[in-house]
Amino acid sequence: MATVQLPSDPEADARVRAVFDDIRATRRTEFVNNMWRALSFDPALLERTWTEVKELMASPTLLDPLTKEMVYIAVSVANSCSYCIHSHTAAAKAKGMTDAQHAELLAIISLAAKTNHLANGLQVPLDAAFDRGAPQ
Amino acid sequence: MATVQLPSDPEADARVRAVFDDIRATRRTEFVNNMWRALSFDPALLERTWTEVKELMASPTLLDPLTKEMVYIAVSVANSCSYCIHSHTAAAKAKGMTDAQHAELLAIISLAAKTNHLANGLQVPLDAAFDRGAPQ
Amino acid sequence: MATVQLPSDPEADARVRAVFDDIRATRRTEFVNNMWRALSFDPALLERTWTEVKELMASPTLLDPLTKEMVYIAVSVANSCSYCIHSHTAAAKAKGMTDAQHAELLAIISLAAKTNHLANGLQVPLDAAFDRGAPQ
Amino acid sequence: MATVQLPSDPEADARVRAVFDDIRATRRTEFVNNMWRALSFDPALLERTWTEVKELMASPTLLDPLTKEMVYIAVSVANSCSYCIHSHTAAAKAKGMTDAQHAELLAIISLAAKTNHLANGLQVPLDAAFDRGAPQ
Amino acid sequence: MATVQLPSDPEADARVRAVFDDIRATRRTEFVNNMWRALSFDPALLERTWTEVKELMASPTLLDPLTKEMVYIAVSVANSCSYCIHSHTAAAKAKGMTDAQHAELLAIISLAAKTNHLANGLQVPLDAAFDRGAPQ
Amino acid sequence: MATVQLPSDPEADARVRAVFDDIRATRRTEFVNNMWRALSFDPALLERTWTEVKELMASPTLLDPLTKEMVYIAVSVANSCSYCIHSHTAAAKAKGMTDAQHAELLAIISLAAKTNHLANGLQVPLDAAFDRGAPQ
Repeated sequence: MATVQLPSDPEADARVRAVFDDIRATRRTEFVNNMWRALSFDPALLERTWTEVKELMASPTLLDPLTKEMVYIAVSVANSCSYCIHSHTAAAKAKGMTDAQHAELLAIISLAAKTNHLANGLQVPLDAAFDRGAPQ
Repeated sequence: MATVQLPSDPEADARVRAVFDDIRATRRTEFVNNMWRALSFDPALLERTWTEVKELMASPTLLDPLTKEMVYIAVSVANSCSYCIHSHTAAAKAKGMTDAQHAELLAIISLAAKTNHLANGLQVPLDAAFDRGAPQ
Repeated sequence: MATVQLPSDPEADARVRAVFDDIRATRRTEFVNNMWRALSFDPALLERTWTEVKELMASPTLLDPLTKEMVYIAVSVANSCSYCIHSHTAAAKAKGMTDAQHAELLAIISLAAKTNHLANGLQVPLDAAFDRGAPQ
Repeated sequence: MATVQLPSDPEADARVRAVFDDIRATRRTEFVNNMWRALSFDPALLERTWTEVKELMASPTLLDPLTKEMVYIAVSVANSCSYCIHSHTAAAKAKGMTDAQHAELLAIISLAAKTNHLANGLQVPLDAAFDRGAPQ
Repeated sequence: MATVQLPSDPEADARVRAVFDDIRATRRTEFVNNMWRALSFDPALLERTWTEVKELMASPTLLDPLTKEMVYIAVSVANSCSYCIHSHTAAAKAKGMTDAQHAELLAIISLAAKTNHLANGLQVPLDAAFDRGAPQ
Repeated sequence: MATVQLPSDPEADARVRAVFDDIRATRRTEFVNNMWRALSFDPALLERTWTEVKELMASPTLLDPLTKEMVYIAVSVANSCSYCIHSHTAAAKAKGMTDAQHAELLAIISLAAKTNHLANGLQVPLDAAFDRGAPQ
């Protein structure tokens, strides 16, 4: 059950087919996950979203692929996006994340959440030293 | 202005002094930031919080120190903790994060937020393939 | 599975029945969705909530009905309320939201989330020009 | 700096004056905090908001006044509302919250945030026993 | 479906068994809920999490047990942690929360959310009187 | 105080200058707000962000300009982005939002937040009727 109808044959639309083909080629798998099927209700939105995800997450950039996935998981957990947590944990696993790394990632995410709430609850004033022009 | 009074001489309390000494020794700096001064209103809470932060963030673990700080920043941004964003960006900078890495980190965080909101707005159903027992 | 028991016959309670009758009359449908069934565990909470929703969302006000639903969806997505996203997307559809408008709404919501996270990550200082007394 | 102009003389409006008088009488203080001054840009919104806050937070109800303030603080911290954290911590202090109780409250809030992020990160499936009709 | 495999026999691991035994003894029930089964994928994370939860939530402290659960629920709702809302509402019920108290708790949580969004939308400036050193 | 240094002369960089020129031409004002100055620490991130904002928010699309700003404000409030709330409220004002419309917008945002927290607290199960294939 989604807020849009997942089309039974999304690739009947040529623009959708082109994006799905690129997803399969880029990821080297026949599997196209539901995020892209749902987005296919609007081919332009699908194209823009895939282009952006591909350029940052599926192309070589400064940060290594697993670090990028771990940052993505961290944001998705804090924003409580169930679908994204599942899909990016699967992606991190596919890129080699071990159970021990997964446990440490969750430990950092949850510790950060803890101190976020402590600092917000205390309304800790900013230190002048955090000013990047100031002497540290 | 905080929700607790930042004590003028927190180290008059022996337990607070011990924690502050450990912070200075662990971080090799005389600087103790306001988070710890605010927490010193309750020495037991200060001790427990520092112990936990030290073990995970200031000790060698599986993930490298800069990756850990970047995950911490990601959670803090998504939770909108202004103090934490400042303090952990400063920590990441101190551990060598370049401006280019910082820009890429922010690009990943904000792209994740974008697709989090898309997936939540669409209420995308989970793929059976995300089941870890299922064939990928 | 809810945190309260959904009563099998909520309208056995006269106050609940009165609210359900008003929901049906106001919306011109026999359908009463689960939100109101769940709230019927406490008739006073049900009455107050329906009164407030009816006055703002089911009565003529300054903003047009579809704009109001789109704002409601935007908040519900950002707060990750799965039930609310479904129910208010259904309401927007019933008020005429096309797929193209839905796609643009999701594009705006997700772009806002992206720049929210960018601005929070950068901790951009407020411009004096945003002061409503200042010259723009 | 607010998104509305704080009027220099809000009580020139009779409806605003009536609300401010009721705030002062209910709270037994001459002090009217900025939340109400900001809301006075729209007297109807001011009236509705004060009525609702007064009925639940400034009147005798089932839960005791300090417990109510602590719950309010908890939500405000998780929603990152700086103004609300300050105002409701001040209210809790005025109702007798000790520093030790404050510290414990912050410990619970931050532990809850920690396990919220753990459970979301793990996507823990619901236990059948949480179904209120099921045997515990 | 979780992001880690729930082991079929978690207690084959001695550390996991010790934690589960302590959960059963502390709570006086044979029931160990899925949160702990999921965490058993990493025995160290399981041990640390249980120890922390036990010390604060399952031991006598300043605040009474039901107040602590209500604060926990409040944070979990605001952070949109479905699992936590279910598990801590069940815990509050087990500690005697009546339906009337539950309704009032939800009323406070949702009113706080409402004024959080109002105050954030208005960007209400802090009152000098909230400064704990200032005269109230 | 930001997490990056706001350059004193950002337009010394030709790419930054081109973006700032386009901002000024598109908005017909000499004023370039701090968001763009902060983003100029990474010209590529600045370019991509401005391009995306311009295409959706500063160009004619399906939804009218004021509705788009109101949706943007709604998301920014729920995500607690202080800077974004200020900048987009200013933009909505510049596009003609009256005080009465502003008050109604805030009333909808805060009511949505209230029912989001109620529905999440109750964990209301989805109605089959929300399934877009089902009879309403």
